[in-house]
Amino acid sequence: MQEPYRTPPALAQPCAGLMDALGIGVPILSAPMAFAAGGALAAAVSWAGGLGLIGGGYGDADWLAAQFLAAGDAPVGVGFITWALHRAPGLLGEALAHRPRAVLLSFGDPQPFAAEIRAAGAALLCQCQTLDHVRAALDAGADAIIAQGSEAGGHGGSRGLFTLLPEVADLLQARGARVPLVAAGGIADGRGLAAALLLGASGVMLGTRLWAAEEALVHPRHHAAILATPGDGTIRTTVVDIARELPWPPGFTARVRHNRFVRTWHGREDALRAELAREGPAYRQAFAAGDPEATGVWFGEAAGMIQAIEPAGVIIARLLAEAQALLAARAG
Amino acid sequence: MQEPYRTPPALAQPCAGLMDALGIGVPILSAPMAFAAGGALAAAVSWAGGLGLIGGGYGDADWLAAQFLAAGDAPVGVGFITWALHRAPGLLGEALAHRPRAVLLSFGDPQPFAAEIRAAGAALLCQCQTLDHVRAALDAGADAIIAQGSEAGGHGGSRGLFTLLPEVADLLQARGARVPLVAAGGIADGRGLAAALLLGASGVMLGTRLWAAEEALVHPRHHAAILATPGDGTIRTTVVDIARELPWPPGFTARVRHNRFVRTWHGREDALRAELAREGPAYRQAFAAGDPEATGVWFGEAAGMIQAIEPAGVIIARLLAEAQALLAARAG
Repeated sequence: MQEPYRTPPALAQPCAGLMDALGIGVPILSAPMAFAAGGALAAAVSWAGGLGLIGGGYGDADWLAAQFLAAGDAPVGVGFITWALHRAPGLLGEALAHRPRAVLLSFGDPQPFAAEIRAAGAALLCQCQTLDHVRAALDAGADAIIAQGSEAGGHGGSRGLFTLLPEVADLLQARGARVPLVAAGGIADGRGLAAALLLGASGVMLGTRLWAAEEALVHPRHHAAILATPGDGTIRTTVVDIARELPWPPGFTARVRHNRFVRTWHGREDALRAELAREGPAYRQAFAAGDPEATGVWFGEAAGMIQAIEPAGVIIARLLAEAQALLAARAG
Repeated sequence: MQEPYRTPPALAQPCAGLMDALGIGVPILSAPMAFAAGGALAAAVSWAGGLGLIGGGYGDADWLAAQFLAAGDAPVGVGFITWALHRAPGLLGEALAHRPRAVLLSFGDPQPFAAEIRAAGAALLCQCQTLDHVRAALDAGADAIIAQGSEAGGHGGSRGLFTLLPEVADLLQARGARVPLVAAGGIADGRGLAAALLLGASGVMLGTRLWAAEEALVHPRHHAAILATPGDGTIRTTVVDIARELPWPPGFTARVRHNRFVRTWHGREDALRAELAREGPAYRQAFAAGDPEATGVWFGEAAGMIQAIEPAGVIIARLLAEAQALLAARAG
């Protein structure tokens, strides 16, 4: 058995609500990144004291079963793209059969799935990009709200985390909702964790920072690309979804590396649609090959603060230590 | 004479670099918002212990002279849109004749103006939206760097403050540059000030929060509009610049209220250009009348955290007290 993790003292009080709600000792969740967040990453995060989430993505039941197997005995959760879950009836039930600690829903109304998740004894986590999303999450009885800033890699909205987070905290307070708030999007180190706590969160969800973990299911060439990309080198776009023929609803875009594929098609979306017979397979082939230029490379603005691909446990331990030191030092 | 302001103890150490560099006792600057940031607002901020900046904007010499007059004996500075300063030769000299404490340049290379500013004894403040802007500012010998997040009202870039700020801090450290870093964009209360310090800043610049100050040159109907608008109710767009025929360079957009004017033209920019003979005057007329729907209403995502139009001094005092309390409480 692993030794018990210790919550740094400066984090214990502000993070207690989240840690109690999820039964974790470290206020860090991993984002359920489609394709990248497999069972090994989720397990590593949970064994480090946080909550690891497998990326259920667009609903491939076989992949999901394999990833729960890979997670072994680790107490992990799973996340889904809500609108895609509607297209895959039965998938939620299959996922719940693995007894996940939590189910995260994002990008759609969580209400239709809330009762089934609760009945299975899993916590319902709702990722929100707007205040209306938060209202819908509260109406669905969410056990935690994740406020995701536009800095995030992959799909998201347009609000910056710096304003979204305190505004959501104010909304929860105004509604009298004692629901823990988690910050997501752009958090890569202890500075981000500490700042998120001051802006009203009681924990953070890491996407890009853990996409760059050794355990993530990411091609080594894509891992090399993030280390060479500054925070200015990403963009929000729809061209990666057009290429994959994924019917993302309005209001959401994907942040990816600003590479040749994006330069070619961003702003020329209709032209891409007209060339799908060629461009669709080319995108998928380049993705499988780990090409850093001819496909979507899925990371966010935090890229500029990531200098190495490391084990998830190392990343998490350093983040906690940095946040503790910062909060203790700034007390004056 | 006013009584001396006291720097809250938790802010004294992290903010010392900025306060020493600018000779201020409170680590808060006001953004030089074109049209809105006149002499009264700048003076109120400086008398509250910070540094107030008059909005030199697009270069109206008579307006500028009147605002320096309105600022009276207050030790204020002035800010310019760098690319517009190139079109108004002599304006910088006229501004420097008023002996401003500082000149802020944003949206263009500060190098051509740096020597004249330094020779006049003013501090050179450079507002940056990307890492390349920061490099240009350092090359020009900036006395402080302002990292502006996309959350900001008015013109800005696309980077979220939550990642831009620590990444700029890392760049300054890597270059060995002992230049104070100021956070801008989305800061409306003590949570934002405290979080900005943890992310690497030694002070903040307030735009939207002081746009909603009693002293700002803002139509009462526009002030009413911000109180009714949540943070989700703004958007980055170019249509307000097209309507005014202002040649903004690529890479910058304006964040304004997402109102009827924006809904009508955003995404239909060519149609707006074709209708300028009618739409240009209509925009200006609606702006002068304080119409909240038919013109640009210039505020940012911080709108969602602003509940009242108040004197600048009240806003600043509360911000300091809140940040002090937060930093002291979170020390564990």
